[in-house]
Amino acid sequence: MYGDISAKAAHMLGQPAVLDFFAKLIQRVSPKSYQQALAEVQVSQKFLENFCGDQVRFLARSFAVPGNHLGQRSNGYRWPYGPVAIITPFNFPLEIPLLQLMGALYMGNKPVLKVDSKVSIVMEQMIRLLHDCGLPAEDMDFINSDGAVMNKLLLEANPKMTLFTGSSRVAEKLAADLKGRVKLEDAGFDWKILGPDVQEVDYVAWVCDQDAYACSGQKCSAQSVLFMHKNWSSSGLLEKMKKLSERRKLEDLTIGPVLTVTTEAMIEHMNNLLKIRGSKVLFGGEPLANHSIPKIYGAMKPTAVFVPLEEILKSGNFELVTKEIFGPFQVVTEYSEDQLELVLEACERMNAHLTAAVVSNDPLFLQDVLGRSVNGTTYAGIRARTTGAPQNHWFGPAGDPRGAGIGTPEAIKLVWSCHREVIYDVGPVPESWALPSAT
Amino acid sequence: MYGDISAKAAHMLGQPAVLDFFAKLIQRVSPKSYQQALAEVQVSQKFLENFCGDQVRFLARSFAVPGNHLGQRSNGYRWPYGPVAIITPFNFPLEIPLLQLMGALYMGNKPVLKVDSKVSIVMEQMIRLLHDCGLPAEDMDFINSDGAVMNKLLLEANPKMTLFTGSSRVAEKLAADLKGRVKLEDAGFDWKILGPDVQEVDYVAWVCDQDAYACSGQKCSAQSVLFMHKNWSSSGLLEKMKKLSERRKLEDLTIGPVLTVTTEAMIEHMNNLLKIRGSKVLFGGEPLANHSIPKIYGAMKPTAVFVPLEEILKSGNFELVTKEIFGPFQVVTEYSEDQLELVLEACERMNAHLTAAVVSNDPLFLQDVLGRSVNGTTYAGIRARTTGAPQNHWFGPAGDPRGAGIGTPEAIKLVWSCHREVIYDVGPVPESWALPSAT
Amino acid sequence: MYGDISAKAAHMLGQPAVLDFFAKLIQRVSPKSYQQALAEVQVSQKFLENFCGDQVRFLARSFAVPGNHLGQRSNGYRWPYGPVAIITPFNFPLEIPLLQLMGALYMGNKPVLKVDSKVSIVMEQMIRLLHDCGLPAEDMDFINSDGAVMNKLLLEANPKMTLFTGSSRVAEKLAADLKGRVKLEDAGFDWKILGPDVQEVDYVAWVCDQDAYACSGQKCSAQSVLFMHKNWSSSGLLEKMKKLSERRKLEDLTIGPVLTVTTEAMIEHMNNLLKIRGSKVLFGGEPLANHSIPKIYGAMKPTAVFVPLEEILKSGNFELVTKEIFGPFQVVTEYSEDQLELVLEACERMNAHLTAAVVSNDPLFLQDVLGRSVNGTTYAGIRARTTGAPQNHWFGPAGDPRGAGIGTPEAIKLVWSCHREVIYDVGPVPESWALPSAT
Amino acid sequence: MYGDISAKAAHMLGQPAVLDFFAKLIQRVSPKSYQQALAEVQVSQKFLENFCGDQVRFLARSFAVPGNHLGQRSNGYRWPYGPVAIITPFNFPLEIPLLQLMGALYMGNKPVLKVDSKVSIVMEQMIRLLHDCGLPAEDMDFINSDGAVMNKLLLEANPKMTLFTGSSRVAEKLAADLKGRVKLEDAGFDWKILGPDVQEVDYVAWVCDQDAYACSGQKCSAQSVLFMHKNWSSSGLLEKMKKLSERRKLEDLTIGPVLTVTTEAMIEHMNNLLKIRGSKVLFGGEPLANHSIPKIYGAMKPTAVFVPLEEILKSGNFELVTKEIFGPFQVVTEYSEDQLELVLEACERMNAHLTAAVVSNDPLFLQDVLGRSVNGTTYAGIRARTTGAPQNHWFGPAGDPRGAGIGTPEAIKLVWSCHREVIYDVGPVPESWALPSAT
Repeated sequence: MYGDISAKAAHMLGQPAVLDFFAKLIQRVSPKSYQQALAEVQVSQKFLENFCGDQVRFLARSFAVPGNHLGQRSNGYRWPYGPVAIITPFNFPLEIPLLQLMGALYMGNKPVLKVDSKVSIVMEQMIRLLHDCGLPAEDMDFINSDGAVMNKLLLEANPKMTLFTGSSRVAEKLAADLKGRVKLEDAGFDWKILGPDVQEVDYVAWVCDQDAYACSGQKCSAQSVLFMHKNWSSSGLLEKMKKLSERRKLEDLTIGPVLTVTTEAMIEHMNNLLKIRGSKVLFGGEPLANHSIPKIYGAMKPTAVFVPLEEILKSGNFELVTKEIFGPFQVVTEYSEDQLELVLEACERMNAHLTAAVVSNDPLFLQDVLGRSVNGTTYAGIRARTTGAPQNHWFGPAGDPRGAGIGTPEAIKLVWSCHREVIYDVGPVPESWALPSAT
Repeated sequence: MYGDISAKAAHMLGQPAVLDFFAKLIQRVSPKSYQQALAEVQVSQKFLENFCGDQVRFLARSFAVPGNHLGQRSNGYRWPYGPVAIITPFNFPLEIPLLQLMGALYMGNKPVLKVDSKVSIVMEQMIRLLHDCGLPAEDMDFINSDGAVMNKLLLEANPKMTLFTGSSRVAEKLAADLKGRVKLEDAGFDWKILGPDVQEVDYVAWVCDQDAYACSGQKCSAQSVLFMHKNWSSSGLLEKMKKLSERRKLEDLTIGPVLTVTTEAMIEHMNNLLKIRGSKVLFGGEPLANHSIPKIYGAMKPTAVFVPLEEILKSGNFELVTKEIFGPFQVVTEYSEDQLELVLEACERMNAHLTAAVVSNDPLFLQDVLGRSVNGTTYAGIRARTTGAPQNHWFGPAGDPRGAGIGTPEAIKLVWSCHREVIYDVGPVPESWALPSAT
Repeated sequence: MYGDISAKAAHMLGQPAVLDFFAKLIQRVSPKSYQQALAEVQVSQKFLENFCGDQVRFLARSFAVPGNHLGQRSNGYRWPYGPVAIITPFNFPLEIPLLQLMGALYMGNKPVLKVDSKVSIVMEQMIRLLHDCGLPAEDMDFINSDGAVMNKLLLEANPKMTLFTGSSRVAEKLAADLKGRVKLEDAGFDWKILGPDVQEVDYVAWVCDQDAYACSGQKCSAQSVLFMHKNWSSSGLLEKMKKLSERRKLEDLTIGPVLTVTTEAMIEHMNNLLKIRGSKVLFGGEPLANHSIPKIYGAMKPTAVFVPLEEILKSGNFELVTKEIFGPFQVVTEYSEDQLELVLEACERMNAHLTAAVVSNDPLFLQDVLGRSVNGTTYAGIRARTTGAPQNHWFGPAGDPRGAGIGTPEAIKLVWSCHREVIYDVGPVPESWALPSAT
Repeated sequence: MYGDISAKAAHMLGQPAVLDFFAKLIQRVSPKSYQQALAEVQVSQKFLENFCGDQVRFLARSFAVPGNHLGQRSNGYRWPYGPVAIITPFNFPLEIPLLQLMGALYMGNKPVLKVDSKVSIVMEQMIRLLHDCGLPAEDMDFINSDGAVMNKLLLEANPKMTLFTGSSRVAEKLAADLKGRVKLEDAGFDWKILGPDVQEVDYVAWVCDQDAYACSGQKCSAQSVLFMHKNWSSSGLLEKMKKLSERRKLEDLTIGPVLTVTTEAMIEHMNNLLKIRGSKVLFGGEPLANHSIPKIYGAMKPTAVFVPLEEILKSGNFELVTKEIFGPFQVVTEYSEDQLELVLEACERMNAHLTAAVVSNDPLFLQDVLGRSVNGTTYAGIRARTTGAPQNHWFGPAGDPRGAGIGTPEAIKLVWSCHREVIYDVGPVPESWALPSAT
C-alpha cells in the first residue's frame, strides 16, 4: 500500500505548481534562497520515487539460513518497533520530517510527529497531500507543541523509539530521559581538508562558499572549519572565496536571518577568536546593513576568521575555536606537509562527527585521512563538499551507537526497525529419538 | 590477522583435553551440569571456527552505489567505534564474554572487558589461550572489579559504546548514566505457547523440562511461563514434565544452587502466587534437601505453579505472575480456542522480549502468534524451544533500539560497528562548468 | 536517467486510458480475456514503478572487502555485457519484452529486441511511449523479422548475451548456435500436487481452473498435470472444476484460439492418452462450436483427461503424458499415501522445471515435496497456484545454468550483468620493501 | 557437516609437513618453483579455513519478501544443480580442482571430477586426505581419463552443469556439445597498462617479472602484453625487467619446461613478430641451454618483444600479436598521452577478458581505463599485478554469460547454484472470498 501512496505523492509533488508551492512555503518560514528551498522539495520528491511499487516490501526483505537438522531454519527479519516518535528542527521543514516519517511508516511503525512549531505549517500541508494520496488518517499522529510539552508526552507515552534531529544539548537530555531509546542526528562541527594537490581552484572556491554560507550556514552539515594545505596559499583560493561571499545578498536570501544566534553573540564569538595570537578576519565580520530583521535573530555578513593551527590545538583555545555557530561563520587555517598529524588530531578531538570533506585526488592522502577519521558522511575527492546530501546516499553521524541516518534503504532499516530472529523447527522428530538424560 | 587467531584458537579449544578443561572450569564457578558446561565451550569453539581465514575481513564488507555524475560514488562501510566496554554476567562465564570480545575485536574496536568477578577466572584462562594464539596483548584490556568501580570507570573513560549483558535493573541505570551509548541484553520473562495441534508429547515434555530447569533455570532464555492449549490437557504432558523434573539431582548439578535468589525468596514468591484464586503447585515447590549450599544462595526443587489465565491478566496479579525468578521456577496456564487473544495480550504486556516459543506446526496459528509478538529470538514449530541458542543464529531481544545481539555476523556488525558513508567525487569537473549564481 | 524514464512511463502507463489502450491492443493480437490482458499491462506498470528514482542505480550496487595490506581492497561489481539481444514470444506481447528490455537497459547494455512478429505492434507502441518519456532513440534497436532472419543476425552480430523466451526446440538450437551465450526461459510442463489436507475446496477448484485454462492454457506456467491426493476424491473438487470450465466462452475470450497447436493435433493427442489403460475424459474433449477461428489455429473446449499414476510412470507412456500441449489441456491423476514417492519420481523425470504448486498447509508434506523438486518458481500452501506471477517475485526455471529470470532486481542482475572484480592496490609500497628472489 | 570437514582439512593441510608434501608433489608434475607450489597449497588451505564452522550453511542463505496478502511471502534460494562435472587443467593441480570441488559440494551438488591426467596424482592424494577428514566416499566421483573419453562421458551422463577450466578451443567445443550447460574459465591474453604517473620503478619492474615469467608464464593470468606510457621510457624500467629475467634459472624452476608449446613454436612465433616494422627483441629470445627437457616440451629463456602500438592495431598484425603463448613470452609496447584511445581499442578487440592491470594512482586515469574495459579480474593502482590471485577475492573472466569464477562465496554461489523461488501462500482465504468470474 505504501508503495502506491509514495508513487502518487511523488507524482503529485513533481508537478511544477506543487514544487513551486512547497518551495515558496518553505521560504515563508525558513530563511533560504528559492533554489535551496526548491532543492529541498526535489530531494523529498526523489525520495518518494525511490519507494514506489514494490520497493517498500523489498525493505522488509528477510533472510534465512539452514539449521542443524531437517525442518530447522533460522530467519532474520527487520521488525518494526510499534509506537515511535519523531522530532525535527526548523532548518529543513519538509525534507527531514517527511523522510523520517515515511521511513517509520514503511517499516510498519505508528509514529507521532512533532516539527518545530515555527515551521510546522509545511509538514501540515504535506500530510494533507499524503492523505489525499491514500495515507490512512489513523496511521500517524501530528502534534503541534513546544519542546516542554513534547518532553512530557514522551515520558508518559513511552514510545519504543524516538528519532530526534536537532541541537546536541536537547539530544543529550532526551537520551538520558528516555534511557537511550533514541536515535539522534545532532549538530556537527564539520571540517574540510584541502590536500597537497592544488587543482580546480575556481570550483573548490565555489564549493567552499556554498558549504559555508548557503542557508546562511544554518545546515548541520555546514562547513565550520577549513584546513588548507600550504600549497593552496598562492592559488588565490581565499580571494576567490571572499569575492563569492560578497555576491550574497538579503534580497534573494542568499544571506539572511539566523534563527538561533543573535548578531551580538556572533560578534562576541568573533572577537574572542581574534584575541588568539595570529588570528585575523579574512572577510565579513560585520553585521548586515539596511534590513528589518528583528533583534532576536542574527544578521551577519558571511564571515571567515583565520586562526593559526598551533593555536587551535592549545587546550584553552580548542573549545572556543570548535564551538559551533549555527550561522554564516567559518574558521580557516593552514597546515604544512609535516603538520597533517596536527590536523588529524584536531579532527579527532572534535565531538560531533557528522559530515566532512577531504578535497584531494591523491589516493594515499585520502587513505590516510579517511582511515583516521570517523565522520558519518564524508566526501572525498577534488569535488568533495560537506553539504548538499541528496536522497541517494546515507546522511548521518558515525561513531555513536545512538546515531541516526536518513535517506537510503539502509538508513530506514537501521533507524526504523530492529532485528528479530525466528527459528522454524517443524520436525519431523527423528523416529530414532529417545529420551536423553537431563542436563 | 584475527582470522588466523580464530583458526588457531578454534583448533586448540577443539582438543578434547582443552574442551574438558574449560567445561570443568566453568562447573567450578557456575552451577550447571557437565553437559551444559561442555555445550557452552563447544558453542564458543564453533563461533571461533566461523571466523577463520578471510571471514573476519568479509565482516568488513562495504557496498558502493554510483553517484550523480562521472567520478562520483557513495560507499557504505561498517566502521568501528574505537574504545568500547564489555560487561558480562555469571551464568555463561565463557560464551558471552568470548563471543562479544571477539566481535568487538573483529570489527576493529579496542575493548575493555569486565566479567562478573565470581566467574572471571574462566575468561582469564581463555585470554591466555588467545594470547598464545597470537592475540597482541595491547589489543584489549581485562579488568577485575565490582560493579561500582566499573561504573565509575565507565563514567570517566567514556567509551564510545558499552555492551552490557545482565539484569534489567543495572541495564536501565547504565543506559541513563551513559546517555544511551549502550547495547543491552537483559533478562527475559520468556513464554512458550503450545498450539492446538497436539503431537510428539514425549518430545515436547522433554524440551519443556530442559527449557525451564537446565542450569537450574539460570538462563536469560529459560521458560518462565507456559501457555497450554486445552487440547494438551488430556495428553499427559504435565505428568511427563513432573516425572522429568524429578530425575534432576544435585549430584550431577542437573539441579543446583541459585546464585541470585534465596530459597526463602522463591518460597515467598510461590506463596504469593498461591493466593491467587485457582492457583496450585503442579510439582516441586519444596527446598532441596541434604545439601551444603550456603544460605545466601537458593536451593529449590524444579517447580511449576498453575495459575488460571483470567487471573494472570488481572492488573493486581499480572506484575506478580510475570516477575522473573532467575531459578528453577515456572508458571503454567491453560487456554481455550477463544482465549488466544488473552494469551497474546499477556505476551504483549510483558516487558522483556528476549526468547519465546510457539509449539505448533499449524501455519495459520504460527502466523497469527508470530505476527503479533515481538520477542527477539522466537522458535516456531513442534520442536520449538526457548533455550539452547547456538552460535549459528542471532540471539538477542527485539523491540528496543538499545537491544544487542550475539553470535552471528549480523549481530557482530550491529553491535560492534556503525554505518559510515564515504562519497568519492574525484571529478573530472566538466569542461563546460561555469560559476553558478549563489544560492 | 533510467529512474526518471521509468517514473514517467509508470505514471503514463497507469492512466486509465493508457491501461485500456494497451489491454485492448494486446487482445487484438493475443487471444486472452480483457482481465488477463489488463493484468499484463498492470504488472508491466508496477515493474516500471519499482525502478523509479534511484532504484536503477541501486541495481548497480557493488561491494568491497579489505585486502591483505594497507591500500588494497577488492570490489565486486555487476557489469554490463555490452551488445545483447532479446527474443520474446507471442503470448505476453507487452510484459515479457518490456521487462527484459528495461532490465537490459538498466544494467547498461545495448539491446536489440525482436518480438514475435504476430504481436510486435504492442511493443512498437510501447517503445514510442518510452521515447516520449525520454528514452534516447539510440539506446536500443527494435527489429521485425521472422526467426530465420533473426538467427542469421545473431550469428553475424555475435551479441555477448542473448535472452530467449519461447519454445524448448528453438531454445536448444540457439544454445548450440551461440555456444551457450544465452539465457533461456522455455516451456514448462508444470505440475500441481494436492496434499493430504483437504481444505478450501471451492478456492482450490477456482485456482485450478484459472491455472489450466486462462489464456486458453497458453502460458508457459499453465497447469499441465494435477496430482491429487485420494483424500480429495470425495471432496467434489473434480465436479467443481468441470463446472468452472463450462463457464468459459468464446465471446469474452475466456476460452479462445490456440495459436501453435491445431484442433486435430489436440484431439489426436487426447486419443493417444485414452488408449492408456484406465484413462478417461473428465470434461471437455471436444472442439469448440460456432466459431470462425481459422483451421491453422486450434479451438478446443477446456479439457481434462484422467490417467492412472502407475500408467503415467511406464516408460512408453511417460513421454506421451508429459508432452506439453500449449493449449487448454491438462492431465489429472490420483495418488494414495504410499504413492508420494511415485509422484516425486514423475516430477523429477520431467524435463522442464518452470513452475509448480504444492497445495497443502502441512509443513512436513511441503518440506518433503519442496526438498525433492527443483522447479524454478514453486508455489506452496493452500493458496498455491502455477500461473499469475506478478512483478514482485522472481519468475524463471531452475536447475539449468542457462536459466533466465524475469521481474525482480535479482532477475535483472543475474540475466543482464556479470560479475567483475576490481582490486585496488594503491600502496604505499612499504618503506622496508626489498627485492625478493624470483619465484 | 562440510564445515567440519573443511575445518579438519584446513588444519591438516596447514601442518608444515603436509604443506611441504603437497608443494613437492606439485613440483613433481607441474614445472614451477617451490615458492610457487607452496603458495598454491597455502591458498588452498586458506580457502578451506574460509568455510569452517557454519560458513557452509551461510552460503545457503536465502531471502524472503512479503507478498500481496496475509500468509504470502516469496523466498529466493540458491539451489544445487544435482549431478555436475568438473574438468581442470595441468597448471594448478591442487588449487583449481580443490576449490571448485569443494564449492560444488558446499552447495549440495554431486560432482564428478576430472583433472588433467598428467597431474591428477595431486588431487588423488588430496581426496584421500578429505576422506580422512570425513568426506563420505559416495559424495563425489573422481575419474582418470583422456579428454575424448571424458567428452563421451559428459554427452552420455548429461550432467546439469559442467565447469571447465582450460584452453579456449576445448571450451568452445564443450559449450556447443553441452548446449551451453557450462561455466568456463579459459585462457586470457592479459594486459597491463602503465599510466602517466611514474613511481616505484623497482617495485613495478619486479611485479612485471613475476607476472610474465613465474611458472614459466604458464598461468592463465600471466602478463601477455605491456602497454607502457612514454613517461616510463627514461625510468630504466625495461633494463630492470631484463636484469630480473636473467636471474631466473632451471635449477630452482624459476624458469622451466613449457608443457603445451614447443621451443620451435615459440621461436617461430617470435620470428613472425619480428617481421613487423619496428619490432625488436628486448631480452631473451633464445632457447634454454644445458638441459634435458624432452623435445615435446618447450624450453625458452624469459622473452620480451617490442612491437610499435600503431603496428599492433593493423588488422593483419593484431591476431598475430594477441595470440596467446602459454609460456615465458610477452609483448611490450609504448604509448603517448594522445594514444590512450588506441590502447583501449586494442584491449577491447582482444577476445579473452580474464585479468588485467592498470598501474597508476591517478584516479581520473584509472576511472577512464576501468570504465572502458571489461576484464573479469582487474587490478588497479601502483601495486597492480595480473597474477597471484588469492582465495579472498573473485577470480574469473567477465563479459560472457558462461564465465565461471573461483574462490569467494560469490563465485561458489554463482557457479554451483541457481536461483529458485518458492512462494508460500498459506492463507487464510479471506472469509469474504467469493467465486470471481472466469478470465
